[in-house]
Amino acid sequence: MVKIGDKIRVITKDENLEGIFMPSDDKKVVLKLNSGYNIVVDKNKIKKTEVIESYKEEKIVKEKDFTFNKNLKTISILHTGGTIASKVDYRTGAVSARFDPDELIQMFPELKNICNIKSKLIFQMFSEDIEPKHWSILAKEIEKEIKNKVDGIIITHGTDTMSYTSSALSFMLQGLNIPVILVGAQRSSDRGSSDAGLNLICAAQFITKSDFVGVGVCMHESMEDKTCLIHKSVKVRKLHTSRRDAFKSINSKPIARVDINGKIEFLSEYIKKVKKGNRKLEVKTGFENKVGILKTRPGMTNKELEFYKNYKGLIIEGTGLGHMPVDVVDQYTKEHKLILNSLKKLAKKIPIVMCSQCVFGRVNMNVYSSGRDILNAGVISGEDMLSETAFVKLGWLLGNYKDKNIVKMLMKENLVGEISERNSEEFLE
Amino acid sequence: MVKIGDKIRVITKDENLEGIFMPSDDKKVVLKLNSGYNIVVDKNKIKKTEVIESYKEEKIVKEKDFTFNKNLKTISILHTGGTIASKVDYRTGAVSARFDPDELIQMFPELKNICNIKSKLIFQMFSEDIEPKHWSILAKEIEKEIKNKVDGIIITHGTDTMSYTSSALSFMLQGLNIPVILVGAQRSSDRGSSDAGLNLICAAQFITKSDFVGVGVCMHESMEDKTCLIHKSVKVRKLHTSRRDAFKSINSKPIARVDINGKIEFLSEYIKKVKKGNRKLEVKTGFENKVGILKTRPGMTNKELEFYKNYKGLIIEGTGLGHMPVDVVDQYTKEHKLILNSLKKLAKKIPIVMCSQCVFGRVNMNVYSSGRDILNAGVISGEDMLSETAFVKLGWLLGNYKDKNIVKMLMKENLVGEISERNSEEFLE
Repeated sequence: MVKIGDKIRVITKDENLEGIFMPSDDKKVVLKLNSGYNIVVDKNKIKKTEVIESYKEEKIVKEKDFTFNKNLKTISILHTGGTIASKVDYRTGAVSARFDPDELIQMFPELKNICNIKSKLIFQMFSEDIEPKHWSILAKEIEKEIKNKVDGIIITHGTDTMSYTSSALSFMLQGLNIPVILVGAQRSSDRGSSDAGLNLICAAQFITKSDFVGVGVCMHESMEDKTCLIHKSVKVRKLHTSRRDAFKSINSKPIARVDINGKIEFLSEYIKKVKKGNRKLEVKTGFENKVGILKTRPGMTNKELEFYKNYKGLIIEGTGLGHMPVDVVDQYTKEHKLILNSLKKLAKKIPIVMCSQCVFGRVNMNVYSSGRDILNAGVISGEDMLSETAFVKLGWLLGNYKDKNIVKMLMKENLVGEISERNSEEFLE
Repeated sequence: MVKIGDKIRVITKDENLEGIFMPSDDKKVVLKLNSGYNIVVDKNKIKKTEVIESYKEEKIVKEKDFTFNKNLKTISILHTGGTIASKVDYRTGAVSARFDPDELIQMFPELKNICNIKSKLIFQMFSEDIEPKHWSILAKEIEKEIKNKVDGIIITHGTDTMSYTSSALSFMLQGLNIPVILVGAQRSSDRGSSDAGLNLICAAQFITKSDFVGVGVCMHESMEDKTCLIHKSVKVRKLHTSRRDAFKSINSKPIARVDINGKIEFLSEYIKKVKKGNRKLEVKTGFENKVGILKTRPGMTNKELEFYKNYKGLIIEGTGLGHMPVDVVDQYTKEHKLILNSLKKLAKKIPIVMCSQCVFGRVNMNVYSSGRDILNAGVISGEDMLSETAFVKLGWLLGNYKDKNIVKMLMKENLVGEISERNSEEFLE
């Protein structure tokens, strides 16, 4: 009798599959393969099923108290959920966000030799459910920890929207004077192939062994379990659905490379620019949620743009250097002229920022006549900002500044590293 | 007296700038730098202006007739506009889509040694203005050329939406039995730094010296002017706003590497699978324009989803493996539960396909409970399709098949190479 959670072998005419037996129905067998993915096999096609290993429930011994070592720095780990704090539940088949924060530390005992650890559960959420209001709560929790005089903070976070959160924290924590590093995992922590350990340990090493202050993201550099990169919070993006090295710095060099033993190699000038001494924390957690993101498409209509007329701001993800369909007048419907008219009308009402679907590179609406039409309509250039960062920045500006002209002016200014100077060494073309 | 179009030197307190003098106003001087970008300098800050070289109008001698060489294959170049067919007009400062197709061939005389050339102007548009109806016209023009027995077709096209068009042609020209290669340029053809020549010549070399049939995209492999890559029409994307090597194959190997002398190196098995002999052209140019693309965002509301209730189909660009906010029930507003409800309702009405903001990698909604909620709501997995390709495919299916269940079924099938098999050598994880 095969039980859920058993490791089994399923033999069909064509295949020989091994994996964990997951909740299935009358007609199908669901197998979780070693890769972590599920495969569904028709029962009709199965010739034979063998149990390789019976399911045994794991037991985790809790160890809540760590001895305080006054020679080590203290890091506070704030948990928000995500894969890094997830378990594969072989009974239900789900990877779910249910991990006791202390278990995570217990799984990686190396941490105790690097720093003293405090741990606090803020949320237990998949990151796609995290909203701007959670960013504000998290920023306030960080402020509390700073008042408690910790030396640095690690935030465990789901990878899906980690770069939205890291950007939000950079804007909300103006003048941040300790290191705050976000860490996630692409494979859950209880799997052999998990990237959680290296990411966590490298973050702790970087916090304790560098002078960095500000918000960074620490994730695997490559498919191998060797080094992590510390990315700038506002210049990083998840660029692969499943790979461990999914996070890439965009239009910027990463801040540093870190290995598990704490060897740090700085890759950019960023660290020299931001000095601990002259920074004073000012927490601004306001956020206007009514900011849209519109990806343009061939054949789009003015209706798609006008949907945002009751919003407070809009990010357009245009094509190439920052274009969208505006220029052609359809002799029958005049449709495209309507898009330009709608754009002008909307830009009078709310700030509209142009970013690019290309992901990499800088928007420049001065090169082509169509770009200039868009500029003249009142659209602001997003320069080399990621559309995700631009979205967070605009929501944050609208949540903290009442004067729309100030919001528009600040959108064009580099506030926390989100816009690179065109000729700077930091801007990687 | 400085005239528009003159090459000048502008000296300010801080800088020493050289460039083409562009139309400027009382307060500002606009300079087009060698990089092709414009820079604006305050007149107040200018200490001195010198003319380096006066503007001279270019004269182009037209040569309309090419001698037919019966030992060479014949390629038809269909022009649609874009940067490749653009000129920098130093008088107006615009890069505009105004190039006589024959001038383009005249600029690259190497083409005449590779093939006989026919040339036809279909459109003269920037690609961001190209709509689905233009794809249909272009497909019919290709059909005409095939009836005229050309050996291959080159389509010059703006880079902004080139991959949308290349995907559309792949779906519209089922069983295509000659090579159709799209070529663009990131720098206009009259510039020294233009990539137009190499892209055009490599496309002609590939068409005449390989057995390839189908639609491909031929663009620079690197920043250098050495080799081009032939990308699969449905697995390619513009991934940089300005670089010459902006086009990258996504989740797939490119088809081949080509150099200017016609040396071809096949990089994938694709060429072996598609055989000329057993293909019969069937042109299906229907397209349903009412298909939306919705990029999810933190804090999104059900209203953003419900906007598409009168559409015929929707592509969702979710996060990670194919997620979006659905799972959290806000105890006050119940807002997120509303998103899941809206999703279920909408998915009953129209096909909804999930792709990923990550660009790279495969969607898999079986891994997390939140993904399974979305699957159970009736959303179709976009697998490893680019969201742009999925958009084109869904519009094309809806334009050609009346039965919604057939549309949904075909969305999951690999029709022209848009979905890779999970373990195939073609799918690059």
